[in-house]
Amino acid sequence: MPCRKNKRDAVEPTRAQCALLKSLYTRHGRKKSARCVCEGLRAVGELFAARPDLVEFTVCTGECAEKLSIPGNCFVVSPEKIEELSGTVHSQGILSVARVPDEPAPETPCGDRFVLALDRIGDPGNFGTICRTARAAGLTELWLTRGTVDPYGDKAVRAALGAQFSMKLRSFENLESLRRSAAAIGFGPVFLTDPHQGESCFQAAGLYDRTVLVIGCESTGVGELAGAPRVMIPMPGHFESLNAAQAATIFIFEYVRRQENTVQTT
Amino acid sequence: MPCRKNKRDAVEPTRAQCALLKSLYTRHGRKKSARCVCEGLRAVGELFAARPDLVEFTVCTGECAEKLSIPGNCFVVSPEKIEELSGTVHSQGILSVARVPDEPAPETPCGDRFVLALDRIGDPGNFGTICRTARAAGLTELWLTRGTVDPYGDKAVRAALGAQFSMKLRSFENLESLRRSAAAIGFGPVFLTDPHQGESCFQAAGLYDRTVLVIGCESTGVGELAGAPRVMIPMPGHFESLNAAQAATIFIFEYVRRQENTVQTT
Repeated sequence: MPCRKNKRDAVEPTRAQCALLKSLYTRHGRKKSARCVCEGLRAVGELFAARPDLVEFTVCTGECAEKLSIPGNCFVVSPEKIEELSGTVHSQGILSVARVPDEPAPETPCGDRFVLALDRIGDPGNFGTICRTARAAGLTELWLTRGTVDPYGDKAVRAALGAQFSMKLRSFENLESLRRSAAAIGFGPVFLTDPHQGESCFQAAGLYDRTVLVIGCESTGVGELAGAPRVMIPMPGHFESLNAAQAATIFIFEYVRRQENTVQTT
Repeated sequence: MPCRKNKRDAVEPTRAQCALLKSLYTRHGRKKSARCVCEGLRAVGELFAARPDLVEFTVCTGECAEKLSIPGNCFVVSPEKIEELSGTVHSQGILSVARVPDEPAPETPCGDRFVLALDRIGDPGNFGTICRTARAAGLTELWLTRGTVDPYGDKAVRAALGAQFSMKLRSFENLESLRRSAAAIGFGPVFLTDPHQGESCFQAAGLYDRTVLVIGCESTGVGELAGAPRVMIPMPGHFESLNAAQAATIFIFEYVRRQENTVQTT
């Protein structure tokens, strides 16, 4: 069914708005318009709380409109219309079109004591889990190398519950350029996570002290970076079974633990 | 296409074997025959290594047959035949029918210092992730309350990469009976995980000292258990976003960390 503008009170999005929204399910469409789509109650709630300035318009059911305070243009439509515009099989009844946030300028200082970086994480579900876990741990930045999934893709936004809108994301061409940029803002060394080599993450001193920790690609692991120290998660059962998101969760919460104890393990 | 017995050399499973295999995709079928199906290279590899005595027969492609040492009856069939018998969209070319392992008798001692228990975890993916993470951490038991997903369902086996075949699983009617049984073999207290209340898992003394830690249902949390201490994962970012599997991973690897340090945090 094509989008129709209701001539009386314009409660439906225009044909152009519908076309824009649908284009945002492709990387090409997002790049062209510098917009993204954010869907689902929690993700949209996070977007509204963190970056209401980015919201261009929202399409939702009457029920959702009552639950949330919605910034900007809001179109209250039928559940069928939502299903038509939704990227999910069972829509939660709300989606917003938002501008993609600008990246911080390279020289912008980072206020965190530690930064997690993702090297070519390809799965939007893994990206999303890692992003919301980092957000839950109180990290404010997440760094990505080229080859990592688009953090503003619809699946990545849903999986992260919109956490990317409350964080600063920085992109890098590769690990070398990431390391240079890190050094320029006073961060280093850059640790590489490894399934087999390196010091235990529970023992490594200085692992979370103005440092960067890189989680690698799901299939090929972390890329090469000459001279970079490696850290691993000890695995007493000798059963390799942690995916990238679980490994990231362990590293992130070891940071939380050390912060809580306010002592560095030595 | 119905299963056909090749009269010359019986390289195909019989009609009865095919019917049995297909029945194992339902809980009813598994209960009736006390068999389960284990599919995929890693899961089957784990089953063969841990419990070859349970394997009744294996159906695989020629390529898989060359890669693995297969205990018991093996039928080498076409990829199309595998697809027909498989529970997945894209089969890895191997599946086995195995007997469901017996539970240990209630009075059997548990050799671990700490036991993870799952209270009505309903998602086979979550169950599987938790099971293989527990296995990776070197735990040998996993306890379940009634209402937890069937640990020998095909999805649970695939998600756990067959880790349930190397572990002892014990089932309990509810948390009360679990606590009684734990006490009978020298375990206690039973800690309940909670998103909001209780001591930090990074601070709680004695959390892993002949104790049980219960992870609760994805939607309703852990059940009631009068007088049981509660523990939580500190969340500096105030963003509730950890699912049951991630939370379990954090608790399990805090155990690994304390084991590695061989000191109890106090």
